[in-house]
Amino acid sequence: MLYFDHSATTQPSQPVLDTMLQVAQNYYGNPSSVHRLGEEARRLLDQARSQIAELLHFDNQEIFFTSSGTESNNWVLQKIVKAQQAYHPQRNQVLLSAVEHPSITAQIPLLQQMGIEVLMIPVSGEGQIDIEAFKKLLSDQVLLVSTMAVNNEIGAVQPLAQIADCLADYKQILWHVDGVQAIACQMDLLHQKRMDLLTLTSHKFHSVRGLGLLAIRNRVPKAALLHGGGQESGWRSSTENLPAIVATAKALRLAWEGQKQAKLALTQYRQQIVTQLETNHWQIFGGEKTSAHIICAALPPLPGEVILHAFSNHDVMISTSSACSSRKAGHHPTLQAMGISEAIAQSAVRISMSQMTSQDQVDQLCQVIDQVSQTFNQDKKGVK
Amino acid sequence: MLYFDHSATTQPSQPVLDTMLQVAQNYYGNPSSVHRLGEEARRLLDQARSQIAELLHFDNQEIFFTSSGTESNNWVLQKIVKAQQAYHPQRNQVLLSAVEHPSITAQIPLLQQMGIEVLMIPVSGEGQIDIEAFKKLLSDQVLLVSTMAVNNEIGAVQPLAQIADCLADYKQILWHVDGVQAIACQMDLLHQKRMDLLTLTSHKFHSVRGLGLLAIRNRVPKAALLHGGGQESGWRSSTENLPAIVATAKALRLAWEGQKQAKLALTQYRQQIVTQLETNHWQIFGGEKTSAHIICAALPPLPGEVILHAFSNHDVMISTSSACSSRKAGHHPTLQAMGISEAIAQSAVRISMSQMTSQDQVDQLCQVIDQVSQTFNQDKKGVK
Repeated sequence: MLYFDHSATTQPSQPVLDTMLQVAQNYYGNPSSVHRLGEEARRLLDQARSQIAELLHFDNQEIFFTSSGTESNNWVLQKIVKAQQAYHPQRNQVLLSAVEHPSITAQIPLLQQMGIEVLMIPVSGEGQIDIEAFKKLLSDQVLLVSTMAVNNEIGAVQPLAQIADCLADYKQILWHVDGVQAIACQMDLLHQKRMDLLTLTSHKFHSVRGLGLLAIRNRVPKAALLHGGGQESGWRSSTENLPAIVATAKALRLAWEGQKQAKLALTQYRQQIVTQLETNHWQIFGGEKTSAHIICAALPPLPGEVILHAFSNHDVMISTSSACSSRKAGHHPTLQAMGISEAIAQSAVRISMSQMTSQDQVDQLCQVIDQVSQTFNQDKKGVK
Repeated sequence: MLYFDHSATTQPSQPVLDTMLQVAQNYYGNPSSVHRLGEEARRLLDQARSQIAELLHFDNQEIFFTSSGTESNNWVLQKIVKAQQAYHPQRNQVLLSAVEHPSITAQIPLLQQMGIEVLMIPVSGEGQIDIEAFKKLLSDQVLLVSTMAVNNEIGAVQPLAQIADCLADYKQILWHVDGVQAIACQMDLLHQKRMDLLTLTSHKFHSVRGLGLLAIRNRVPKAALLHGGGQESGWRSSTENLPAIVATAKALRLAWEGQKQAKLALTQYRQQIVTQLETNHWQIFGGEKTSAHIICAALPPLPGEVILHAFSNHDVMISTSSACSSRKAGHHPTLQAMGISEAIAQSAVRISMSQMTSQDQVDQLCQVIDQVSQTFNQDKKGVK
């Protein structure tokens, strides 16, 4: 089996699973308990938090554990925006890039119910935020801007440094970055001091399922989404998922240590796969500023689902778009925002890699691309 | 080490960890992905959901996975109450029992901000809901009633059958039950057809950390807390934590299969521990209708923290109250609601067991109770 759907989710690595298991078996005290086992759990929790903070260039007390990227994004748009508005009652706009994940865009109706005007930041034909258009949207009306670091459908790397420059004159605007897809090989992108809020999720970088985080600068006004026992300094109640937290601290460190090498390897793999696809007359989306681990391509007029199943028959796992949209046929918000016609977009599939992807797997994938494409091209000729 | 803090959290059992590991390693596809690995993951998800539904006497489509009991409780009070109010705009009251968990009571200010009047249902001196007082609070003003199945601080088993009877004439009132503490040995309590909503959390019954569930009858109006990719039939977005879900289905089945025997054993253990405590002049809280797995007791005027540390020095883990309140010194909402004086309540500690507790552990605990108590009693004499 060849797995090329790492942007949907990754397999937890063995060292990460070992860590999770060890914590689950030996440090099972509740970090809120004051006995020895609880204290040990709390020490591990503090240690993991500080390791993650260091890797992300945040302070320890700025790291808050959640259950998913979705929860983090909901927290930002449902609650942090409200807390910010309490300080700036005259502001009532939120700017979202046109290529955000459904866990951002699905909240537009909620924001509107709160009386907030939601404006979309357009993107270029390659999926990058249009900086000139962005500048024009900035004003003293804006509460918060939410952008991705790396887009999940086509891998477009967003110009975070330029966004930070634009925001330099707007200190009162909160800037949230969904960094979920950046950990494979764009982690340095996230070291942006101007960034106020950062969302990550564990299962995209070979950690276990069920852990998200929201990094919130101390300067940001906070309000909780989940209320209760007062964990996470009172800002996110729930018994802490310690085994997943410690495992994720390890996975993030491994991902950071592997960045440089992964970027080199993945860039080469991407080039090889793109070349193969182009040889077989595929259309490739995105341009130079696309993260090396994601390839979005189409073979129109074939529907993406048909292509996906052809690959699946060769035991190769790819996806039609993001997993979060993939059960809604033909839903490609990013391609749509890039101005790709529906006729082309409906044929799009995503091939996504990770730091664990090997040369051998890429070679095998290229063979399958060739086989599948030739079959399809013959079918096309047959129809003619 | 003797662990008697199972009501705070439990150690995941080996069969449950094995299951989790197997799913994490072999079924790591995203259940929303349409390729083979995704389809396999979805099949496992459906299977786990149906196993849990059967054990809880709910329909498959009535089981929604969350990340914690806290999230489930927040979902009910932040969103389900609102959805219910949309159908019944003339109703504006929520009734909470006076002994609910902080993940319920911490939301009172939010409810009040929504214009909802929150009324507390008083409890008896043994911690059970006062049924006569409850009846008087019922009216056409009430949107939702939230009660526990088993209280987390003193183990008071709530009269769910009587509550159901009271609610028979009020079909429009939603009834939410926090069943988190019921799985050790009171699971049959939860098989209540009148119950509309049920909260559980995995880590209280030897499953892994980080999974909650909210069972919602089909008849209940729904609104999501987490918006995004549309998982859980659109009602709870986030990539599903499949390893934890499958592991928890197994843990719940094991807990159900062990109910009868556990209830017998725990009843005997409780009696033995209570007898020991009474011999050493402790005061026991709660009465006959207390779940066998929880013992709440005090040795006034000693502060609970001092008692806890004395046990911890003997490598015995107990708690001063619920873990969720234990870092707030002297916070005993249940004892307070029962009318216990602050002078006595500040001395309270909780000894909590699970299906894994053994006779040998109980014997050892009783020895430590005797030793610790004698030391304290000598100290008292010394002071005199």
